[in-house]
Amino acid sequence: MALFVHKYGGTSMGSIERIKNVAKRVAKWHDAGYQIVVVPSAMSGETNRLLGMANEIMPRPDPRELDMLASTGEQVSVALLSIALHALGKDAVSYAGWQVAIKTDSAYTKARIQSIDDAKVRRDLDAGKIVIITGFQGVDDEGNIATLGRGGSDTSAVAVAVAMKAQECLIYTDVDGVYTTDPRVVTEARRLKTVTFEEMLEMASLGSKVLQIRSVEFAGNYRMPTRVLSSLTDPMIPLEEEAASGTLISFEEDTNMEQAAITGIAFNRDEAKITVLGVPDKPGIAYQILGPVADANVEVDMIIQNQSVDGKTDFTFTVPRGEFAKSMDVLNKTAKENLNAVSINGDAKVSKVSVVGVGMRSHVGIASKMFRTLSEEGINILMISTSEIKISVLIDEKYMELAVRALHKAFDLEKA
Amino acid sequence: MALFVHKYGGTSMGSIERIKNVAKRVAKWHDAGYQIVVVPSAMSGETNRLLGMANEIMPRPDPRELDMLASTGEQVSVALLSIALHALGKDAVSYAGWQVAIKTDSAYTKARIQSIDDAKVRRDLDAGKIVIITGFQGVDDEGNIATLGRGGSDTSAVAVAVAMKAQECLIYTDVDGVYTTDPRVVTEARRLKTVTFEEMLEMASLGSKVLQIRSVEFAGNYRMPTRVLSSLTDPMIPLEEEAASGTLISFEEDTNMEQAAITGIAFNRDEAKITVLGVPDKPGIAYQILGPVADANVEVDMIIQNQSVDGKTDFTFTVPRGEFAKSMDVLNKTAKENLNAVSINGDAKVSKVSVVGVGMRSHVGIASKMFRTLSEEGINILMISTSEIKISVLIDEKYMELAVRALHKAFDLEKA
Repeated sequence: MALFVHKYGGTSMGSIERIKNVAKRVAKWHDAGYQIVVVPSAMSGETNRLLGMANEIMPRPDPRELDMLASTGEQVSVALLSIALHALGKDAVSYAGWQVAIKTDSAYTKARIQSIDDAKVRRDLDAGKIVIITGFQGVDDEGNIATLGRGGSDTSAVAVAVAMKAQECLIYTDVDGVYTTDPRVVTEARRLKTVTFEEMLEMASLGSKVLQIRSVEFAGNYRMPTRVLSSLTDPMIPLEEEAASGTLISFEEDTNMEQAAITGIAFNRDEAKITVLGVPDKPGIAYQILGPVADANVEVDMIIQNQSVDGKTDFTFTVPRGEFAKSMDVLNKTAKENLNAVSINGDAKVSKVSVVGVGMRSHVGIASKMFRTLSEEGINILMISTSEIKISVLIDEKYMELAVRALHKAFDLEKA
Repeated sequence: MALFVHKYGGTSMGSIERIKNVAKRVAKWHDAGYQIVVVPSAMSGETNRLLGMANEIMPRPDPRELDMLASTGEQVSVALLSIALHALGKDAVSYAGWQVAIKTDSAYTKARIQSIDDAKVRRDLDAGKIVIITGFQGVDDEGNIATLGRGGSDTSAVAVAVAMKAQECLIYTDVDGVYTTDPRVVTEARRLKTVTFEEMLEMASLGSKVLQIRSVEFAGNYRMPTRVLSSLTDPMIPLEEEAASGTLISFEEDTNMEQAAITGIAFNRDEAKITVLGVPDKPGIAYQILGPVADANVEVDMIIQNQSVDGKTDFTFTVPRGEFAKSMDVLNKTAKENLNAVSINGDAKVSKVSVVGVGMRSHVGIASKMFRTLSEEGINILMISTSEIKISVLIDEKYMELAVRALHKAFDLEKA
């Protein structure tokens, strides 16, 4: 009997009325003869409410205690959803992560799943029950609750789907799939029926925040077909229609061979650029500059080192805009003195735009088409970075929407 | 090193500010060199909020799921209290019941504690930590969360105190002890410094709702000295003063031998009386009348069977007022037909007043003094029931306060 894992986000679980709708949707799938495991998030706002109380007591509370606290949000959700299924006459049972057990490491507030015992869940499914498991959390070897961090319920759902050998993991959310780009920027943006795992990874990491990036990695590592679809439709729409809706993250790359070169345009508005000018061009210079930045827990993204002139070079990199001030502080304290840099310049009003697609592996001229399009719009490129399936450029923030729209049109993304 | 268990009720844990006060009080005891285990309730209102959501979905939700839901309230409390102790520089760790583990049976929503593993808690205490354990809940043999029912945190605290061989279990609450009677009825009511376990049991069962009755039974079975004291005092009052405050439930009966005959006046306003008139006086008649009432989950309290006349007898008993209508229905359906009762009469406006004291074992004339006092006030006695340490009378509801005041004065309870 085919097994599906359903994951519902906090908005979908946000009220008793919505929980009842989730129950109707789950019951529809069960009525159709499928085994169903549901992984719901905490009711929207609940995790913030809980963590807010902790932060009211002291700054930076102990991570283990934060996990004790925050994990209750999902436990409330699973119990309420189970009761809502009972109200529809369904046999359902809820489990906290530790009851399954979903074993994690002990990195509280950002733990990683190590294993999932499928015995109890399998037994219940075989007895005809719908099984509901808390997202976002598991238990470490010492029996402490550990959470997976924000958005961790996506990862929980995919991990459960892998452990249970599900046919598909359905991520129900408040958008109806993955788009060629953000429809708020380009009204012609088109929903993708399928996207490859690698493309999804680039889209997610580049700011298309439909899925937590770790859940995409998990799906990729275990080749679990994962579908992003809307929880806002009428729960009683025909199952066949629902099962084909949204966007499927697929692992059958061959089917994409004849598709368009580019799948989508991703972007991230909130970037900042830092340039360290006139440092000696010697081995270890990159580490000497970036080491202190990494030590301050800043994630560096694009990095460029210029051709050296007279034994001196310039070194440019980007950081999230929220970390810009901290990064400049660190560099002014360390790099300037130790490295005899001529100067350190920063620009916190830059954005990144990327074209993404596995198809570019087998197509030539993607980069030149991208650069020409931007040039025709008079947009100056500040930095370029490439991978096998994406080309990213850093541009002045004020041109971001223009660039996204021009590229979306240039690559014909509005056409199916 | 002496170990104390502290229990804090929902009002004491009702806000972040109050939780900080609890932490200050606990830290004061730890600073004085004691090992401390804390058992807090859910924040006031939280259990009702959670159960309210479940009842919004359907009437009579599944008890196992209700326990999954309601148990989160205490988990939030332990995490927040642990963080509040960290904020004071204390080493503290929180555990849910299943982590300790506190093992229970599987009678969800009214489970009973079967065993408590002290190993983990002992290890933490020996390492200098303050240990915080969720009240109200444990885990059954199958790994399901089971709660102990309303007020169950008192029982959890006493059970933990027994398991840890604590010197004393301190129940911090919003009253400052056990009184000779309700101070809202008799302004001269006096706080008792000690009360015996059996007296406390009678006081609790008769409506003086300071402690959950099961926690008193537990304390009695294991002879755990248990003190009821106020959580509303300044948390920084001297420890010696606090340790001697409130009311100690004691197990050293001898010390009471020379005390007054009567310890207190208990009462319960919400009683109802039912009389089944003219039933045949034959073996099994009590069961035939009360069996169907018990089957309807109504707890019968006082029972009287009159002297039989011409082979017929009258049978009178009391039930909680909230169960009166249901009980009358049951009797009208079953007892009347099956038993040829002449009639079934009910009175839902009666109250019970009791004088309680282990001293009455060694004093004569308590009953006659009680009856004379009520007679002098013109109060008619409807039923009488006695035990070794209490005499209860049922009277018309409108005389209840008058009876309590007159008895409190007649037995000199305002004097220490």
